[in-house]
Amino acid sequence: MLEYTHVDGLSAEDVARQRAIYEPLTASVRALIDATIRTEADADAVAAAKAEIDAATARLQSRQVDGPFGIRFSADGKQMPWGNPVIGIRNPVAPPLVIHRRDDGAYVSEFDLGAAYEGPPGHVHGGIAALVLDHLLGEAASNLDTPRLTGTITMRYLRRTPLGRLQAEARIVRTEGVKAFAEGFLADAEGVTVEAHGVFIQPRWAREPQ
Amino acid sequence: MLEYTHVDGLSAEDVARQRAIYEPLTASVRALIDATIRTEADADAVAAAKAEIDAATARLQSRQVDGPFGIRFSADGKQMPWGNPVIGIRNPVAPPLVIHRRDDGAYVSEFDLGAAYEGPPGHVHGGIAALVLDHLLGEAASNLDTPRLTGTITMRYLRRTPLGRLQAEARIVRTEGVKAFAEGFLADAEGVTVEAHGVFIQPRWAREPQ
Repeated sequence: MLEYTHVDGLSAEDVARQRAIYEPLTASVRALIDATIRTEADADAVAAAKAEIDAATARLQSRQVDGPFGIRFSADGKQMPWGNPVIGIRNPVAPPLVIHRRDDGAYVSEFDLGAAYEGPPGHVHGGIAALVLDHLLGEAASNLDTPRLTGTITMRYLRRTPLGRLQAEARIVRTEGVKAFAEGFLADAEGVTVEAHGVFIQPRWAREPQ
Repeated sequence: MLEYTHVDGLSAEDVARQRAIYEPLTASVRALIDATIRTEADADAVAAAKAEIDAATARLQSRQVDGPFGIRFSADGKQMPWGNPVIGIRNPVAPPLVIHRRDDGAYVSEFDLGAAYEGPPGHVHGGIAALVLDHLLGEAASNLDTPRLTGTITMRYLRRTPLGRLQAEARIVRTEGVKAFAEGFLADAEGVTVEAHGVFIQPRWAREPQ
């Protein structure tokens, strides 16, 4: 199932150059998404904006990969999950989260969620909380040598999560053969709003040959 | 917490007019998101596209609501969750799902997920499956008289979900006071890929005054 995995083997310079080209584009599309949801512009202004957007899309489509982005690797073996809907620096759907590994082994991120992620008025959609936590727990449960995919995950909603500045945290609790048990939470300035725990499993294709 | 809820009281004609203005705009932004992820255009083409996008954003921002979209209501009391990240016809992040209630009471949807929702190469991000299922189970567990928000939800991943045409289904299993128990699944043409079950709770603000 690696048909979409491009092993690009880009040098560090190439990675930096591509990032400099595509990251500002993605940031502009994120701003456009927010404006698209919130605009009250009239039909003429919207038609003019739509024409500009369609022109931009045609320019970008003039040269593009077949199929989705996949996961690419630089020459030094670093993953480039740039199309990912949580952390992808080339995916406008992603907030994107920047995830750090703390010295105590926890994976942590601080990020902002705006209008594009709204469920109950003024609050984060419960499924967006699940998207973020699934990703963060999965990252805590995995490493480059041992990728692990979600087996089961449970989200517990303590209260609604307001839109705005949030933080999330996840850690591995224990491992057991091909399984890793992870837990984490989403929080606002007042404390935890959603808790998660899950079992993450090393996929067959990523296990040592027996 | 209704500070962002606009009770617009739009007539059916106004709703249709707004839909005709904003739905094609949103569809264009969805195509742009896909192109942004997949493009291999060079720096000059990307800069030209970015300038067009920024111009479109400025046009749309010239008149916009403060804060997120909220949930608006038409004059006949119909909800307009147009900013929702799963079903919102004005939210480019949403695929969007169109959900139907079947005669047997199940809530069902068929939809396509493309590059913007990719986790493992060629496959749906596990958190996107969770986003879709959280929404669909919540919709099955709720109705206009009795909104219910997710209390806990568990996702069980049977196998990876390929990008492309998918279907999802959810139903209420039983209710117990302010709680409703719901279950559902996500499936491709070969069968179920992710199962979900959850408890959905009527929020305090939506309960009958005692």
